[in-house]
Amino acid sequence: MTGPAAPTPSALAALHPLPLDAVRLDPDGLLGGWQQRNVDATLPHVIEQLTAYGNLDNLRRVTGDADAEFKGMWFADTDVYKALEAAAWSGTFPDFLTDTAALLEKAQEADGYLDSYYQVDRHDQQWSDLGFSHEMYIAGHLIQAAVAAARGAAAPQLLTVARRFADLLVRRFGAGGEELIDGHPEVETALVELYRVTGHQPYLALAKRFLDLRGHGMLGEGRFGPRYWQDHEPLRSATEMAGHAVRQVYLLAGAVDVAVETHDAPLLEAVERLWDSALATKTYLTGGQGSRHKDEGFGDPYELPPDRAYAETCAAIGSFQLAWRLLLATGRSGYADEMERLLYNGIAASTALDGKSFFYSNPLQLRTGHDGSHEDTPSQRLTWYSCACCPPNLARLMASLHAYAATSTSAGLQLHLYAAGTVTGGGLTLDVRTSYPWDATVTLTVVSSADEPSTLSLRVPAWCRDARLTVNGSLIRTGAQSGYLPIHRVWKAGDVVELTLAMPPQVVAAHPRVDAVRGSVALTRGPVVYCLEHADLPRSLDGIEFEDLALDAGAPIGLGTGIAPVTLLPTLHARTPASNLPYRPLSPSEAGGPVAAVPAIPYFLWANREAGPMRVWIPLDVPSS
Amino acid sequence: MTGPAAPTPSALAALHPLPLDAVRLDPDGLLGGWQQRNVDATLPHVIEQLTAYGNLDNLRRVTGDADAEFKGMWFADTDVYKALEAAAWSGTFPDFLTDTAALLEKAQEADGYLDSYYQVDRHDQQWSDLGFSHEMYIAGHLIQAAVAAARGAAAPQLLTVARRFADLLVRRFGAGGEELIDGHPEVETALVELYRVTGHQPYLALAKRFLDLRGHGMLGEGRFGPRYWQDHEPLRSATEMAGHAVRQVYLLAGAVDVAVETHDAPLLEAVERLWDSALATKTYLTGGQGSRHKDEGFGDPYELPPDRAYAETCAAIGSFQLAWRLLLATGRSGYADEMERLLYNGIAASTALDGKSFFYSNPLQLRTGHDGSHEDTPSQRLTWYSCACCPPNLARLMASLHAYAATSTSAGLQLHLYAAGTVTGGGLTLDVRTSYPWDATVTLTVVSSADEPSTLSLRVPAWCRDARLTVNGSLIRTGAQSGYLPIHRVWKAGDVVELTLAMPPQVVAAHPRVDAVRGSVALTRGPVVYCLEHADLPRSLDGIEFEDLALDAGAPIGLGTGIAPVTLLPTLHARTPASNLPYRPLSPSEAGGPVAAVPAIPYFLWANREAGPMRVWIPLDVPSS
Repeated sequence: MTGPAAPTPSALAALHPLPLDAVRLDPDGLLGGWQQRNVDATLPHVIEQLTAYGNLDNLRRVTGDADAEFKGMWFADTDVYKALEAAAWSGTFPDFLTDTAALLEKAQEADGYLDSYYQVDRHDQQWSDLGFSHEMYIAGHLIQAAVAAARGAAAPQLLTVARRFADLLVRRFGAGGEELIDGHPEVETALVELYRVTGHQPYLALAKRFLDLRGHGMLGEGRFGPRYWQDHEPLRSATEMAGHAVRQVYLLAGAVDVAVETHDAPLLEAVERLWDSALATKTYLTGGQGSRHKDEGFGDPYELPPDRAYAETCAAIGSFQLAWRLLLATGRSGYADEMERLLYNGIAASTALDGKSFFYSNPLQLRTGHDGSHEDTPSQRLTWYSCACCPPNLARLMASLHAYAATSTSAGLQLHLYAAGTVTGGGLTLDVRTSYPWDATVTLTVVSSADEPSTLSLRVPAWCRDARLTVNGSLIRTGAQSGYLPIHRVWKAGDVVELTLAMPPQVVAAHPRVDAVRGSVALTRGPVVYCLEHADLPRSLDGIEFEDLALDAGAPIGLGTGIAPVTLLPTLHARTPASNLPYRPLSPSEAGGPVAAVPAIPYFLWANREAGPMRVWIPLDVPSS
Repeated sequence: MTGPAAPTPSALAALHPLPLDAVRLDPDGLLGGWQQRNVDATLPHVIEQLTAYGNLDNLRRVTGDADAEFKGMWFADTDVYKALEAAAWSGTFPDFLTDTAALLEKAQEADGYLDSYYQVDRHDQQWSDLGFSHEMYIAGHLIQAAVAAARGAAAPQLLTVARRFADLLVRRFGAGGEELIDGHPEVETALVELYRVTGHQPYLALAKRFLDLRGHGMLGEGRFGPRYWQDHEPLRSATEMAGHAVRQVYLLAGAVDVAVETHDAPLLEAVERLWDSALATKTYLTGGQGSRHKDEGFGDPYELPPDRAYAETCAAIGSFQLAWRLLLATGRSGYADEMERLLYNGIAASTALDGKSFFYSNPLQLRTGHDGSHEDTPSQRLTWYSCACCPPNLARLMASLHAYAATSTSAGLQLHLYAAGTVTGGGLTLDVRTSYPWDATVTLTVVSSADEPSTLSLRVPAWCRDARLTVNGSLIRTGAQSGYLPIHRVWKAGDVVELTLAMPPQVVAAHPRVDAVRGSVALTRGPVVYCLEHADLPRSLDGIEFEDLALDAGAPIGLGTGIAPVTLLPTLHARTPASNLPYRPLSPSEAGGPVAAVPAIPYFLWANREAGPMRVWIPLDVPSS
């Protein structure tokens, strides 16, 4: 049994996922710690909120076991399904799984329909507004939960319920049926996964049909035009990601699933082209995507405002899921690089240290004087949201995190994510010791091995300019080439591989077309993006405002410790504005004076202390404006 | 009869508006040309659209003279009222005025209620949702149209209709009545103006009551929290403009009206404080306000992205109306400076050269690759909008433009806006000759004068560092002091005053906290903001993209002609990016090479040629990123 996105044996695939139990992440490591926190704090919190906010009662209304009003968003069922999926991947909360599966079975209509919003008062409106109703989006999340349960050998009735709904979709919208699509992609990838679990070909055919139907304006103008739901242009000919970011990346995940199962190489190439374009012009340094609050959408190329970054948590999760699929299909390390960048930045930032509060949007800057009173742009993480898609999405991702660390081929084992734990695959069992990403070294010890030669491939991220590999103390390779370092040999228990990925602090500039951060730089170390946060400003700095800080980019950057094992110690100057006039003649600014050390902390740890401004992009202390 | 915002004789007032016929703008001048275009093109177009889009039929549904569905926004009546106001101020379209007034009289309910959205199918929902229903906002625009008609001596039945509705508001919401306020301020300023026209004190009292009730959370959370409709904090204690920009400036206009009529100096001071704060931290170089599309709102202090500027046309018009009220109340030249900045930039940009298409939002940058398919962020002006508030708002402003050019006091005449035409006031009649803002010189010839000494005061804008004044050829004053230059004498017919306001091209930088334009500068000349537009890029510049242009700020800026009588000729370099990587190590950029002349054109004239990118803020060609 594998984790999320497991292509069938006949699919196009460069790499294969490992069985779900092949990787164990050590809870003392960073990734394993997150996974543990997910089970200990996030998932219980999510399940509590499903009760508190009425999501479960919405379903009980349908069965007659509750008579409250429908509560929350019309797609509130999906929060339940994502929590079920998280429980299934993590093998926890069996009662929640079983009880909820029984509730769903009872709530499901005879024809397979299941959507608590449309089952009591709005029965006559079923399937009448597919642009906004989210009925297939909901079906998709139900199916994904059932797939996870099937792969995790939990709550078997979930699969029965999901298949009934999927069969209804096939009857109604499959070949010869109505030509309609859902305004929110999601069912496509779910249907392919259901095909993978069941072998039932009509699910795959329906997913392909939905993809082919999309892009011809069938959904109309809606509120934001056809781009919003990627109905403006067929995916195969589109040249850039556009519209609502979550819809876009979910759609592309489904496209990869269809492409690999139907051996549709042009479709796969189309997705890769869109991916490259988005990474080049529409992605934040944190991996976040979506530059606009108005339509939760991608903006124009190079429109990447740090303060108004929407960078929805669900978009980052969707991008991670898409990258995973592209990695399996192509074996290209850049996709794993992006998974890593997302994990340590765009995704990790969304969850508080205690695992119980979350960001929905993930800005790269919060200003002094920010109005954080609205949940759309809060100053601090919130425990729940009126549209609560992100927290349970985090729960299901973290529950399956171990599944993304490594893959296998007939030749051997590939390591993509470095974290303390054990990995079994490609004929090898490895013990992995590292405090990556704080420490540059990953030590792998062979615990057991088949007697045949096998290739162990280790990812060298593109950010690394100096990788050093030893086996049993002997230097095997050194250099700056990113990609996978292959080590082919007959492995023996006790063999020790040591990979060191040099990670000096980096001063990073953006492409000059990213107008919003012109004249500013960011600090990174390894895969981790750093930021300045007001809480680190010494109290003694009277009269110096957070916004007056500027970086002396010529000075070396030291390392420190603090809220994280590694903080950065840049040299900052304070530049008092020459005047408070908003607009004035251009004149050389006074050189700023050095200020006491203000550490830069990992971006993903911001907003865990007192509320205050934060910034990833730091102005350069150079003369002008 | 005066124009908009005419305080009663007993009001707090530093300056007094002139009678509506005291100023005539020459159609050959820029302001007079706009006024003529308004009557020739914009207003006829608006009236046509009121028929085409069903606004008038909405009212005819109520009278039984049409049986179509209600069309457009639920506050579509206001478009009719603003068009009526425009017709009244301009003394044009008497049949439209008379016929529509008769229609309104017929549609009005016995108790005075008049709102076509709530009069046919939704009768039972009247007054049930004041947060969003806009019922009093609609009443406010009706009242303003009636005030204009009364002052313009047109369609007297409009005043009768408006008073009936106002009397209903007084009965229902006045002292002792329901304690409710409208989600969209507007009725406050309208009620004070109605008081001014009728002398009926309860209208003033109701306006004051609405102001006092506001700011205590009475409207609830709505979609964007109580700031959205300025209900988060009483206006008297607020420290910054916040929420929906149009709502905020309309509210403050009403507050000034109440303050001056009730001699409430602390209220006036509160408005001035908010004004100063917004000008310092929340206003674009064009005078535009509102940094966010999501809630059409002010953002945080210094959040002023040029590309995502919302800068709604109606907000600029509202800011102009507020500035006019503050100018009358205080006599401070800064308010007239802002009126001028808004007129030549934030307001003028919204209308196409032909007067028949309009911007709703007024960005300061349009990128290469901009998706202009949605009306929220179009690439070109549109002939109409689904929410068509802006075009008729422009029509009523332009129709009354002459009313804002000058004022009087017992001591004499003050000139605020310079435009060719004639001005009568303060015992003087002046002939004004100028091609300002293209030419620096304004020549005033006394046509007639009372025999008594009188003070003629001429505004020297804050942008001017060198003003030169002669009377009959003798130099009277020279210097850099902004404010009003007073000339006290017994004027004789034939006296000639010449004011020269030196207007060299300026390279303008923003306050360093305006992150979005760091490392960039803007070009201005006099009150006019300039921009680069793609249409001016020579075809021969193969391989040079618009976004590669950067300014050599050390080189002198020449003057040219073209789409405007004065264009600017900066020295631009083309900087080809060192790589297409979105993020890369900081390294010195190659110096850009000079490119053939690309003129900068007045911002207000952009998007009148082929579609393409535009920018007000131009990157400086300095080494870094």
